[in-house]
Amino acid sequence: MRSEKDTICAISTAQGMGAIAVIRLSGEQSIYICEKIFKPAKAGKLLSQQKANTIHFGSIADGDKDIDEVLISLFKSPYSFTGEEIVEIACHGAPFIQQQILQLLIANGARLATAGEFTQRAFLNGKMDLSQAEAVADLIASRSEAARRVALQQMRGGFSNELIHLRAQLLNFISLIELELDFSEEDVEFADRSELIKLVNQIESLLKRLVQSFSLGNAIKNGIPVAIVGHTNAGKSTLLNTLLQEDKAIVSEIHGTTRDVIEDTINIEGIGFRFIDTAGIRATKDEIENLGIERTYNKISKATIVLLMLDINDPDKKIHEAITDIKKRLNEQQQLIVVINKTDLGDHSIQERFNKVSFKELSGIDAIVPISAKNQVNIESLTSSLLKTVNLSAIDNDEVIVTNVRHYEALQQSLEAIIRVSEGLQTGISADFLAQDIREVLHFLGEITGHINTDEVLGNIFKNFCIGK
Amino acid sequence: MRSEKDTICAISTAQGMGAIAVIRLSGEQSIYICEKIFKPAKAGKLLSQQKANTIHFGSIADGDKDIDEVLISLFKSPYSFTGEEIVEIACHGAPFIQQQILQLLIANGARLATAGEFTQRAFLNGKMDLSQAEAVADLIASRSEAARRVALQQMRGGFSNELIHLRAQLLNFISLIELELDFSEEDVEFADRSELIKLVNQIESLLKRLVQSFSLGNAIKNGIPVAIVGHTNAGKSTLLNTLLQEDKAIVSEIHGTTRDVIEDTINIEGIGFRFIDTAGIRATKDEIENLGIERTYNKISKATIVLLMLDINDPDKKIHEAITDIKKRLNEQQQLIVVINKTDLGDHSIQERFNKVSFKELSGIDAIVPISAKNQVNIESLTSSLLKTVNLSAIDNDEVIVTNVRHYEALQQSLEAIIRVSEGLQTGISADFLAQDIREVLHFLGEITGHINTDEVLGNIFKNFCIGK
Repeated sequence: MRSEKDTICAISTAQGMGAIAVIRLSGEQSIYICEKIFKPAKAGKLLSQQKANTIHFGSIADGDKDIDEVLISLFKSPYSFTGEEIVEIACHGAPFIQQQILQLLIANGARLATAGEFTQRAFLNGKMDLSQAEAVADLIASRSEAARRVALQQMRGGFSNELIHLRAQLLNFISLIELELDFSEEDVEFADRSELIKLVNQIESLLKRLVQSFSLGNAIKNGIPVAIVGHTNAGKSTLLNTLLQEDKAIVSEIHGTTRDVIEDTINIEGIGFRFIDTAGIRATKDEIENLGIERTYNKISKATIVLLMLDINDPDKKIHEAITDIKKRLNEQQQLIVVINKTDLGDHSIQERFNKVSFKELSGIDAIVPISAKNQVNIESLTSSLLKTVNLSAIDNDEVIVTNVRHYEALQQSLEAIIRVSEGLQTGISADFLAQDIREVLHFLGEITGHINTDEVLGNIFKNFCIGK
Repeated sequence: MRSEKDTICAISTAQGMGAIAVIRLSGEQSIYICEKIFKPAKAGKLLSQQKANTIHFGSIADGDKDIDEVLISLFKSPYSFTGEEIVEIACHGAPFIQQQILQLLIANGARLATAGEFTQRAFLNGKMDLSQAEAVADLIASRSEAARRVALQQMRGGFSNELIHLRAQLLNFISLIELELDFSEEDVEFADRSELIKLVNQIESLLKRLVQSFSLGNAIKNGIPVAIVGHTNAGKSTLLNTLLQEDKAIVSEIHGTTRDVIEDTINIEGIGFRFIDTAGIRATKDEIENLGIERTYNKISKATIVLLMLDINDPDKKIHEAITDIKKRLNEQQQLIVVINKTDLGDHSIQERFNKVSFKELSGIDAIVPISAKNQVNIESLTSSLLKTVNLSAIDNDEVIVTNVRHYEALQQSLEAIIRVSEGLQTGISADFLAQDIREVLHFLGEITGHINTDEVLGNIFKNFCIGK
């Protein structure tokens, strides 16, 4: 049986071979277990007698058999990540050695940690609230500057501090209102209604702001989906390569993170854009029922931005048809950017051509950008069109942005409940109905911070963590 | 220009996403550079004023912009791995964050380390000799218990300590002999010849032992090559799967280490065996010129052990022909193990069948092992036959074993030179010839420990390290 009292261990660094690897233990027995298998370089040194936040050199040994030379870092309760005694063993990075040390720890009384169990303990021991714990996983998974910033801010409680504060005030009111219910026959008001209205308005406006921030937050976390539509010879891959070059060294040096999906995630000024390649579309009616093209339209429907790539050498009629066709497929929230590629080869006065021909459809186009993907001409005009879809000032000012679907759903439910409270207060609803709505607000807000939690909720959250965190 | 005075930095943990990652700096400016970008959690704390071997919590920040919350470990010169000031930054394991911190360090004056540069500095700063430095890479790359043990022993100087000691004594003698040369007209002997003969014999016997250990060392390091020969339906893959199961959890849990080659490396009691699958061989003369079969014979010639897998249901004649055919291809050093598979299906009295038929070729077979790969019968008899080819006692007793080709070659050259010295002493060779041979011994021994080194040699050694070590 797994217990929260167990001392847990796991490899906390990335899998595979590195120069060094770190194995982490947490729990009451951490130092005791390590002491059993650690031979300090300085004979006679006892780990259990060393100060917190110190590092010690020696060997890990299985009886007489030395396994590796290591550095041991000690962290003591309650001043550690989990709030428990933590030992970190930095060993040589051979996967074989990592496994041997892990097995030795298990043989000496530790248990393999489950996914996210270190962070779960940090939450259970009051080192962070639930939304902060969730941000740890987001931070580790962050793949763009904006995603990193938002996750770090949330990890530091930027998101929940205010919620916790307002919830505590609301909790105060409900106890007064519940007191009123006890004295219901006497028609007293312990809870100052005007103060309550002020608080409810404050909560309502915060929740509205947070709920609204989710569409940006979701885009930041997962990358803004951009469907690229166009013939295979329109220059899609040349454009993607050009954008990737602009993406500096950061992403291209990262292995195994982005390129394992068919999509290309490209960072543009710290914002991740997910470029979704689509099969070519022909703007002729008779082929539209084709299954591959339907799949393309399906992908388009999920995109925030659609990049329609056209060839400047295409005749006006073909351009017209392509735009007409794609526009029929878009809803109001979606942005359409028409990219006219190959300006190196054709007529540069594209705007004149657009003006000349009567395109009544032009109204719905967010930008028309003539580029030469090959010669990298006017690419910055395209990237700034892409960035216009993002509320950059919100990110730059470190505004609180909700990125987590679970939080978003709880916030929406809180908002609905607080609106009912607000309406109830205006219409002078009876205290018992009021109390019920307030309790709902408290419940949903508490779900976000983890004041209200179930094993199932916790299980769902931490199962998506990596082991070792 | 790269300089040994630069402060270098690199990600030292494995590539990819983990819970945490470690970035390492080494050099005079390490602590100074970190201080510029580190915001301690405890305001006012200065890294440069902290003690060695302590850990500090805070944030890495680029100006106002916090990048991540980190733990900083400090190691001070000369008590560090490289002998220089070292700072290790443990950050959240997002590749994106690792890259951002690395770029920030570079922007603040550090330089990206080249492969193995930390270890190279440890060598240049006298923290370890060259053979110890090489063992660091071997340790990181170790994939079996025996390889890990031998590398750890070599890293701790088990290999070079004795060489350094004997070389120093020899160096003492050569200065005396060179003094004799200065007084050559007076026919004096400053160097006690009987003492010198004792030392030379001691060196010769050590070198012989070390040179001999290489075939075992090489097998330990790279795995012992075992060619499996037999028809595709003889049960080769069933056998490999059965052996893999015996290989405990250690290897099967390691990702991306062994399975990326066509060969299967299987640990049997801590020894790695590289099973080389070969195309089927038909024991008929007319097909032998076939190119595929030639390729098989080519692989067989590189194996230490050949496993000939036969089906117990094959007629005696077929078994006879297969053995005759394979034996013609083997040299004296190679071992032949005949595995008679499918004892679950056929006649169990295989030994009787072998006795009955007149196989004069049986003499050259090291073992005949009837097994049932499917039912896992008698597998331990096969594994013990495989292990018999390895000098287990040498490993168990932690004898010094040479695993490195560079060392092996230098040892061979030292041995040849010391034998010339020995012969020269017996024949009463003149001091100047003696001195020349001794200088050669000193040179080759010095190459192993790094007392004699060139940039080219160092370059060749460290380029095979991973970056970050």
